[in-house]
Amino acid sequence: MLEFPAVPGLDAAAQELARARQNRLTKPTGALGNLEQLSIWLAGVQGGCPPTPPSRVAVVLFAGDHGVASSGVSAYPAEVTAQMVANFVAGGAAVNVLAAQVSASVRVADLGVAFDLPGVELPPDVVKWRVRRSSGRIDVEDALTISEAQQAILAGRQLADEAIDGGADLLIPGDMGIGNTTPAAAIVGVCAGVDATSVTGRGTGIDDATLARKREVVASAMRRAATDSGLSLVSSIGGADIAAMAGFLAQAAIRRTPVLLDGVVSGAAALVAERLAPGARAWWWAGHRSAEPSHTIALRELGLTPLLDLGLRLGEGTGALLAVPLLRAAAATLSEMATFDEAHVSDRDA
Amino acid sequence: MLEFPAVPGLDAAAQELARARQNRLTKPTGALGNLEQLSIWLAGVQGGCPPTPPSRVAVVLFAGDHGVASSGVSAYPAEVTAQMVANFVAGGAAVNVLAAQVSASVRVADLGVAFDLPGVELPPDVVKWRVRRSSGRIDVEDALTISEAQQAILAGRQLADEAIDGGADLLIPGDMGIGNTTPAAAIVGVCAGVDATSVTGRGTGIDDATLARKREVVASAMRRAATDSGLSLVSSIGGADIAAMAGFLAQAAIRRTPVLLDGVVSGAAALVAERLAPGARAWWWAGHRSAEPSHTIALRELGLTPLLDLGLRLGEGTGALLAVPLLRAAAATLSEMATFDEAHVSDRDA
Repeated sequence: MLEFPAVPGLDAAAQELARARQNRLTKPTGALGNLEQLSIWLAGVQGGCPPTPPSRVAVVLFAGDHGVASSGVSAYPAEVTAQMVANFVAGGAAVNVLAAQVSASVRVADLGVAFDLPGVELPPDVVKWRVRRSSGRIDVEDALTISEAQQAILAGRQLADEAIDGGADLLIPGDMGIGNTTPAAAIVGVCAGVDATSVTGRGTGIDDATLARKREVVASAMRRAATDSGLSLVSSIGGADIAAMAGFLAQAAIRRTPVLLDGVVSGAAALVAERLAPGARAWWWAGHRSAEPSHTIALRELGLTPLLDLGLRLGEGTGALLAVPLLRAAAATLSEMATFDEAHVSDRDA
Repeated sequence: MLEFPAVPGLDAAAQELARARQNRLTKPTGALGNLEQLSIWLAGVQGGCPPTPPSRVAVVLFAGDHGVASSGVSAYPAEVTAQMVANFVAGGAAVNVLAAQVSASVRVADLGVAFDLPGVELPPDVVKWRVRRSSGRIDVEDALTISEAQQAILAGRQLADEAIDGGADLLIPGDMGIGNTTPAAAIVGVCAGVDATSVTGRGTGIDDATLARKREVVASAMRRAATDSGLSLVSSIGGADIAAMAGFLAQAAIRRTPVLLDGVVSGAAALVAERLAPGARAWWWAGHRSAEPSHTIALRELGLTPLLDLGLRLGEGTGALLAVPLLRAAAATLSEMATFDEAHVSDRDA
């Protein structure tokens, strides 16, 4: 069964306590800027004030290939997806290094990688999530059958459950897949109602000729999109990795677990997840703004303000991992700073 | 003697090694955005590649009152400066909480706090830096005599030396002083050649009437400014805290020690420091962009791009402290990520 139950609301009482406490801390009202909103959100998702800094952060990396890569939409060959999965398992990628910086765990799930690497045996826990090899060429065919899309969403849901049952107090979705900014752009274009030119960017760094091809692929995919549900959308123009990530994001909300979103692929998956489980977006915060143009459009559509804006365009969850210290700082200031009364400091009304 | 020696250059060879290594790491070229530039800068200031994540971060808080506070330019009464100094010493302020998050030390130096708090005895190491009580009303008189300005700059220089000799590998200047965004705005206005209206902001959160008064004070100060040197500038329209911070920033560059700048007050002090020790700016990175309008102008004038833009307007070094994990992440990715060769991942030219 693929129905998600109703998404629970954040704890409004905890948020009200957090808002009131922010105004009693020894600093000018509002002087901590976006960190104040972030601390109030953390109180709401944790259901208590002051919130505790998230200490068990779990990254789940959704890997999959995309048929459109054969249309020449990327600067990198498609075998890089499988090579990078091996790199994640070996611990050599950016996501591994940045996860270690904030003591986060990293789990890799192969939803639809196209190739096996000769001589490389991946752990069973990585490959057991595989729904199919690669996804369909979305400019001319569906990415997935409805049944495959359901299977992928359920896999994402199970990955969220396992992380939460394992004690995670903050989830981060990561992505890996050569060509994956193409379905992401098409999904954002359809959900935001903007044209293919506005949502198509240079991904890993493509040249002008490749960009022109990618725009045509995105435009064709957008014309093909089935839009009656999140399931049909991700089946028609998504991919197994994006479908699984959408299930993961929806389930996090159902399980009252906060999520830091990453870049454009998680933005597209979030738009799908919001259709699978309306209101889920209240449980997510945007880690950063990617350099990819469709990401800004996705964030606007989701009503989310990113914490970082560093020109990143790597995916893997890296932008979200970089924002983790800001969440911890927001929780720590709300919980540990002295109030005006405690510190005998005069407030502005004194 | 107040002459600073010539500012040394960054290690160009280390920067070249860092740039080359960035392009061999298992990620698309440029995909780590501003972190890549940051990692190259760290290699340059440390004189080696890969750089090590800064682990001994030292915040020095420069506290001082400003005569202009009596002109009604702030939302808070002037005794708050002294109260906040006591709060810093007790560990209850935002800077203390955020420093603990990144294991940074915090040292408080009273350069010109106006009042003693009844019943509060500050440690000798805090008060021994005091140049005078408060600084002059810069709309009608000099902030400091030349001799006082020299004494303050030397104090800042000594504070930098003591931090560096104590092993600090990254310095952060913090500020505390009711009214201090007024001299900061005037200094930025003079250095950038823009008018008082453009540089005057709401500081801790003033209303329209107070903002109008503050603009007049800034305009008067800018007319009064002596501009033949950094020393005369900070003496005419700065203050003891800003002069000391300028000496601190200049000395950090002389001592080849990187600095993360904070908000508008450190931006103004940086403009003074660049006049005291031309070229010093190469040793500083901007931690964040403050909500105060003159800060954006100061950063432009310094040629610096901020890491964070969170609407903070607190000072104390808080914005810089929040950026410390990004420096560590930049160093860690450059040092710990696998290269294409090591991980057997195909590069775009493969």
